[in-house]
Amino acid sequence: MEKVVSLCKRRGFVFPGSEIYGGLANSWDFGHAGTELFNNIGSLWWKKFVQERDDVVGIRGPVIMNPKVWEASGHLKNFTDPLVECKVCHQRLRADQTDELKAHAETHPPAGGEKVEWTKPKNFNLLFKTFIGPVEDAAATAYLRGELAQTMFTDFKLMAEATRKKLPFGIAQIGKAFRNEITTGNFIFRTKEFTIAEVEYFVRPGEEDKYFNEWADFMEKFLTENCKLKTENLRRYEHSKESLAHYSKGTIDIEYKFPWGQGEGSSAAGGGIASWGELMGLASRTDYDLKNHEKLSGRNLKYRDPDTGDEFLPFVVEPTAGLERLMLAVLLDGYHEEKDRVVLKLDPRLAPYKAAVFPLLANKPQLVELAREIYDDLRRHFMVDWDDRGNIGKRYYSQDEIGTPFCITVDFDSLKDQTVTVRDRDTMQQERVRAVDLAMYLEDRLK
Amino acid sequence: MEKVVSLCKRRGFVFPGSEIYGGLANSWDFGHAGTELFNNIGSLWWKKFVQERDDVVGIRGPVIMNPKVWEASGHLKNFTDPLVECKVCHQRLRADQTDELKAHAETHPPAGGEKVEWTKPKNFNLLFKTFIGPVEDAAATAYLRGELAQTMFTDFKLMAEATRKKLPFGIAQIGKAFRNEITTGNFIFRTKEFTIAEVEYFVRPGEEDKYFNEWADFMEKFLTENCKLKTENLRRYEHSKESLAHYSKGTIDIEYKFPWGQGEGSSAAGGGIASWGELMGLASRTDYDLKNHEKLSGRNLKYRDPDTGDEFLPFVVEPTAGLERLMLAVLLDGYHEEKDRVVLKLDPRLAPYKAAVFPLLANKPQLVELAREIYDDLRRHFMVDWDDRGNIGKRYYSQDEIGTPFCITVDFDSLKDQTVTVRDRDTMQQERVRAVDLAMYLEDRLK
Repeated sequence: MEKVVSLCKRRGFVFPGSEIYGGLANSWDFGHAGTELFNNIGSLWWKKFVQERDDVVGIRGPVIMNPKVWEASGHLKNFTDPLVECKVCHQRLRADQTDELKAHAETHPPAGGEKVEWTKPKNFNLLFKTFIGPVEDAAATAYLRGELAQTMFTDFKLMAEATRKKLPFGIAQIGKAFRNEITTGNFIFRTKEFTIAEVEYFVRPGEEDKYFNEWADFMEKFLTENCKLKTENLRRYEHSKESLAHYSKGTIDIEYKFPWGQGEGSSAAGGGIASWGELMGLASRTDYDLKNHEKLSGRNLKYRDPDTGDEFLPFVVEPTAGLERLMLAVLLDGYHEEKDRVVLKLDPRLAPYKAAVFPLLANKPQLVELAREIYDDLRRHFMVDWDDRGNIGKRYYSQDEIGTPFCITVDFDSLKDQTVTVRDRDTMQQERVRAVDLAMYLEDRLK
Repeated sequence: MEKVVSLCKRRGFVFPGSEIYGGLANSWDFGHAGTELFNNIGSLWWKKFVQERDDVVGIRGPVIMNPKVWEASGHLKNFTDPLVECKVCHQRLRADQTDELKAHAETHPPAGGEKVEWTKPKNFNLLFKTFIGPVEDAAATAYLRGELAQTMFTDFKLMAEATRKKLPFGIAQIGKAFRNEITTGNFIFRTKEFTIAEVEYFVRPGEEDKYFNEWADFMEKFLTENCKLKTENLRRYEHSKESLAHYSKGTIDIEYKFPWGQGEGSSAAGGGIASWGELMGLASRTDYDLKNHEKLSGRNLKYRDPDTGDEFLPFVVEPTAGLERLMLAVLLDGYHEEKDRVVLKLDPRLAPYKAAVFPLLANKPQLVELAREIYDDLRRHFMVDWDDRGNIGKRYYSQDEIGTPFCITVDFDSLKDQTVTVRDRDTMQQERVRAVDLAMYLEDRLK
């Protein structure tokens, strides 16, 4: 884990946020490589969950919605963590995290002697609060969304009409959500703001279990076949009835085996130095949300069957992914140490740069000029890096570290026969390719 | 304008946000077509401003940063609107918007008789406030970012090291910003939360004017050549010294001629029924931000010239685009009423769907089956719509309205010779193309 964190900082994947001010608890910035990798993961998700599916369409809603949305959804009442406060120093901790309470009791107070006493647990709401307009009172209070789903529910009717989709169909969104959690940690695994990619899939009541199972398979396939995560690092975890969110009649997580100690993640049974943590979640939300929005808004949100004319509230199956933690899994899973190199074996579609172009020598204008031409041409097709420092071996090493699938070297032969060397990241095999064919050759191999 | 707004709602581009609860002032949701159009605009911006440029790399920062960032940047002190409060009803309005004050004075109070008195103007900060953790006090106060630029400044050194870029180079970001403005309006032109696409371009002191001019040309070219906005609907507007933001030594806006009355937008000289409003902005930010972050953080943020060893703070030129208003301009500019149809003449790269597939008749299984095959195949390449309702003319009309460049009809000839009709949105010309060549034919014409 430390090795990946160090690579992330050094090579522009992930930096501590606001670092010059000592950071901000669990806030992270993505550098140039991290931003491309992150965007590529989001695009691949959209391609598989929206573009290639006939039954899913996109939506984009705001972070700040009408506060009534969160009243209807139950979040104002139920989206809480139980907190206790230390009576001596007034620090607040989660009542259900016994390890942290114990650690606090052992180290506190520094002067010693006093016994730790806790207040009774009090539920603390996880929605970040803000105020719209210049007056900071109850009437102006609004919230940053704690999940994306509510846009799909409030707009369900409008979307059904505009898209003319028939059940079952889904509405998908990628966007940021915010949770004012006390306990955050483990690098980018859990942060106060994070990006969710989510589908609300509307089905006829009674058909929810069938589609629940279909989506579980679809999600796993996405992780193994598209994100190329190893099967042995994934498992399904079924939530017990007691641990279900207030809107769910059943939830499974697809978990990844993260290389850190127990405690984090949804189950404590990780064992050893690894811990299973949620990558994706799948919830069976019934008609809970639509029903409550109908009640509070007074609007009819029922689906009207175009064939039979029947009106009813659909049930909802919700596949969700946390994109930052998916990026972390992709980095961890792709990280390989080999004899003479460190290599990120990322799926080419996810790699920040698809290729890098090197002039063999930086001080030979003819080599640099031809390499530049190739670099300028390829950049019109996809992200390409450039390197003219040191020897070619070092440049390969540097590109392997950020997962670039192909390195292209322009050498003296290139000036004669207009071919270049293409070196494959995984096999380290080299091949001569005509410069004019390069774009098409690479696009083909990147598929 | 009303026609475009109506089209937007009907065809899934833009809905009022949280509409079932009577909306939330100036909050809008994007439907399936709007989401694709919006994402395409963002991707095209990224391609032109990052991917194709050798001198710009991406970054992704959080909405909630360490509050010291906003102290250093001057936003806590200077990012304000002057407000006055009506002494009778306590409504607050912007002191510099004389039209609104006048309107208030004329209609208020409803009972009549009382004369309106205003408090003295007081500066009201435009950053949305929130609290991190369970205690709502000054120490826990944080802000939603009012601009994206600060991530590029706080991480400047880390990024220069990780990317090995030499001056001049830029750091780009696309993301949401939040401004608690009292005056919002004109559909998606001005909203409290909006998406910025922005480059902070770092240059040697003294070279800022040269690059300022280069960027101004580059931005205009993006709007005309890539977004295909008409030149006559664009102009440059130079801010007077008095109207400059606190960090700027010079700013120009690239404005679009929006079809609404005067008052909105940066200049009042719109005339008639149109009004010029900012689409993109270009600011010369000097070393204002880096200098202040150095001072407050105590960190050295100087750039070290790799050739000479000189250390200095770079100057910054900042090209910015508001993506929602750019989408509005693209919709307005693309909207055409012709004799028998309404057509959105969007650049094919921006169109929500690249193609639509129609079986000539919905009740002929052989036609539907072949059309489905084509539809399933094309969806692996790009977004494709499906329509089997009514007659072909109506389906063309429906796709023209959302700007789909190509409509593909599978008819009885298709069953014999495996060719289909491809109809061009703009010329309305039809061509027979072999089904097996379709993906390549379309990808070629979409370029």
